[in-house]
Amino acid sequence: MNGKPLVSIVSAGLSKFGKHEGLYAREIFALALKEALDRCPKLEPKRHIKAVFVGHMGESYEHQGHMGSTAADWGGLIGIPATRTEAACASSGVALRSGIYAVLSGLADVVLVGGVEKMTHRTTAEVTEYLAMASDYPFEQFHGVTFPGLFAMMATAHMNAYGTTEEQMARVAVKNHRHALLNPKAHMQKELTVETVLASKLVSWPLKIYDCSLITDGASCIILTKPDLASKFTDTPVHIVGSGQASDTIGLYERQSLTSLNSARLAAKIAYEMADIRPENVDVAEVHDCFTFAEIMAYEDLGFCKVGEGGKLVEKNETALGGRIPVNTSGGLKAKGHPVGATGVAQAYEIFLQLTGQAEQRQVKGAHVGLTHNVGGSGATAVVHIYRSD
Amino acid sequence: MNGKPLVSIVSAGLSKFGKHEGLYAREIFALALKEALDRCPKLEPKRHIKAVFVGHMGESYEHQGHMGSTAADWGGLIGIPATRTEAACASSGVALRSGIYAVLSGLADVVLVGGVEKMTHRTTAEVTEYLAMASDYPFEQFHGVTFPGLFAMMATAHMNAYGTTEEQMARVAVKNHRHALLNPKAHMQKELTVETVLASKLVSWPLKIYDCSLITDGASCIILTKPDLASKFTDTPVHIVGSGQASDTIGLYERQSLTSLNSARLAAKIAYEMADIRPENVDVAEVHDCFTFAEIMAYEDLGFCKVGEGGKLVEKNETALGGRIPVNTSGGLKAKGHPVGATGVAQAYEIFLQLTGQAEQRQVKGAHVGLTHNVGGSGATAVVHIYRSD
Repeated sequence: MNGKPLVSIVSAGLSKFGKHEGLYAREIFALALKEALDRCPKLEPKRHIKAVFVGHMGESYEHQGHMGSTAADWGGLIGIPATRTEAACASSGVALRSGIYAVLSGLADVVLVGGVEKMTHRTTAEVTEYLAMASDYPFEQFHGVTFPGLFAMMATAHMNAYGTTEEQMARVAVKNHRHALLNPKAHMQKELTVETVLASKLVSWPLKIYDCSLITDGASCIILTKPDLASKFTDTPVHIVGSGQASDTIGLYERQSLTSLNSARLAAKIAYEMADIRPENVDVAEVHDCFTFAEIMAYEDLGFCKVGEGGKLVEKNETALGGRIPVNTSGGLKAKGHPVGATGVAQAYEIFLQLTGQAEQRQVKGAHVGLTHNVGGSGATAVVHIYRSD
Repeated sequence: MNGKPLVSIVSAGLSKFGKHEGLYAREIFALALKEALDRCPKLEPKRHIKAVFVGHMGESYEHQGHMGSTAADWGGLIGIPATRTEAACASSGVALRSGIYAVLSGLADVVLVGGVEKMTHRTTAEVTEYLAMASDYPFEQFHGVTFPGLFAMMATAHMNAYGTTEEQMARVAVKNHRHALLNPKAHMQKELTVETVLASKLVSWPLKIYDCSLITDGASCIILTKPDLASKFTDTPVHIVGSGQASDTIGLYERQSLTSLNSARLAAKIAYEMADIRPENVDVAEVHDCFTFAEIMAYEDLGFCKVGEGGKLVEKNETALGGRIPVNTSGGLKAKGHPVGATGVAQAYEIFLQLTGQAEQRQVKGAHVGLTHNVGGSGATAVVHIYRSD
């Protein structure tokens, strides 16, 4: 492809992330859609949109499956083909990938891609159980392993192999909370110190409560079209120039490595090659920091630093706003929040803002190339996309 | 498109439908995949397959989400991008649609599309609850409505409008059970009489237990490729020449009509136009007979007869093997079984067999054009595909 745009994003919307008491997921999705439509007055939704893909992880939260058509219905898009995609926390990352296929297929010129989750009305125990369904039932869940446990195993393996420290992990939380203070849509608006993180309640060693992402309600969407149609809808499209998706074993116990996600490395390799872009060309990235450790691993899997040096990268402030490669300017899953089905496209929303100069207080100056990295479960799915402005 | 092949099916596989005690969904999926691979020795799965889409409806049955990667893992396809699609009982119908997008996109020359569900280890009450998640939670489920109730409302509206009778519905069951006797993979191997159906236990009037499809374990898959690559893998491809997907309101209460599914009519119109084929050209069809009444409504939505005359069509034996347009030669959801996520692609499997002359005792002689009709929930999703042999 050599950097040729695959598809172009002509608009994007995001609900406030946080607690939406009294709203159903479908209503939160409509909030995100409204922003995308308001931002793109030339788009007539019922006339132009030819397909809808909605990432939604858990039918259990609201006792509601069939979220593709449900969200399309509440979005006023009745009739238009609507499909729910699910790949755990990468549910809307794969929705984006599916939307790209649809645009490229020639069957759907304009495609709405989004994601949604309503979680905060459930207890932490319920959420933990529902999330665990993204791991292996017979060999993981059944024995009581939950996600903090799975990521703790990876973190300890990384500490052992490379000397990564709890303090380095804490620095990811401090950075992302600081970024979130600049994002009015972020769930958590609270500055942290390394000491607060280290002293916070233990969840699964070495992960403390402030190493974990948030239980959040939220929805996201973007509108894709063919590059040659983009000017019909906007003067400032953002092009997707690389797309990689890969899978891995559902169970962590079968992996060759615990210190890296093979799916993420593979997805990144495909996306970089397609985009003809190297890691050092990326100006801004949103990565899957479901736990602080996961962001450190993402740096390495994406080639932002050498293997084993992810901890040092955050320590040197290179991934903070103002640093060499700002990561999770939105606040990330850690502080913006992690409404699981919405996360993948929420990352694309942030990159859309950054590459169109609309990120306000958290704008990365001159950002021209962006990247998103969305992981499902403990890495059985990974999706990497690369974006470029004109 | 005017009948030009969109994609070609080069192989297909189906597990036995029935009770698979002691197997997980992923293992049943592997059984279906094995048949498809055995049937297509020229295909090297890890080398050729570039994307996997797996229809799976309910995470609750096995406490297992993330079924795309889980099925790919157990199928030996680790690394290959794998996405679960869900649209209730049309989960693999939309997987097929997504697979078509992927092939047409140019990003994936060969795509595996399938579906799976493991249901029989759960009680009927549990299954009823899990299935209900495909309807509207706040306005349907919450008030105790389940699927037999929703389809009973449609059936009574049809009886009132057109004089459709319980006996006509019973004839659908009798026909499909008779067809299933010719399909060794069908769950139910039992001949029925109209009297037996009419005298069977009431579920939700006018639907009796023999008007309802089965709770079944099963998996299905097909392998798609670009038409110009098909000859690399098989001498007898089946081409998909029309593809339509449409949505409708999630709740039945908002529909303009209770006697027809607007989503199915819309999907059929799109598919027929794309294929340049008219209903009278269809030689064999698999339609979504989740309840006997649903098959009668399908006849009308697909244009196999005039509106209101679906009951008479089955009464005159026109949709039985040997009739004008045989419907559900496999036994249908009613007698082959309805492992919900697997159903859409299982329909495509039957059409693949019919159009390649491999349907043995139930072969429709000279079948050249086939159709599948897959419905999600009470019609918030419908997917129609049209197939043609060379």
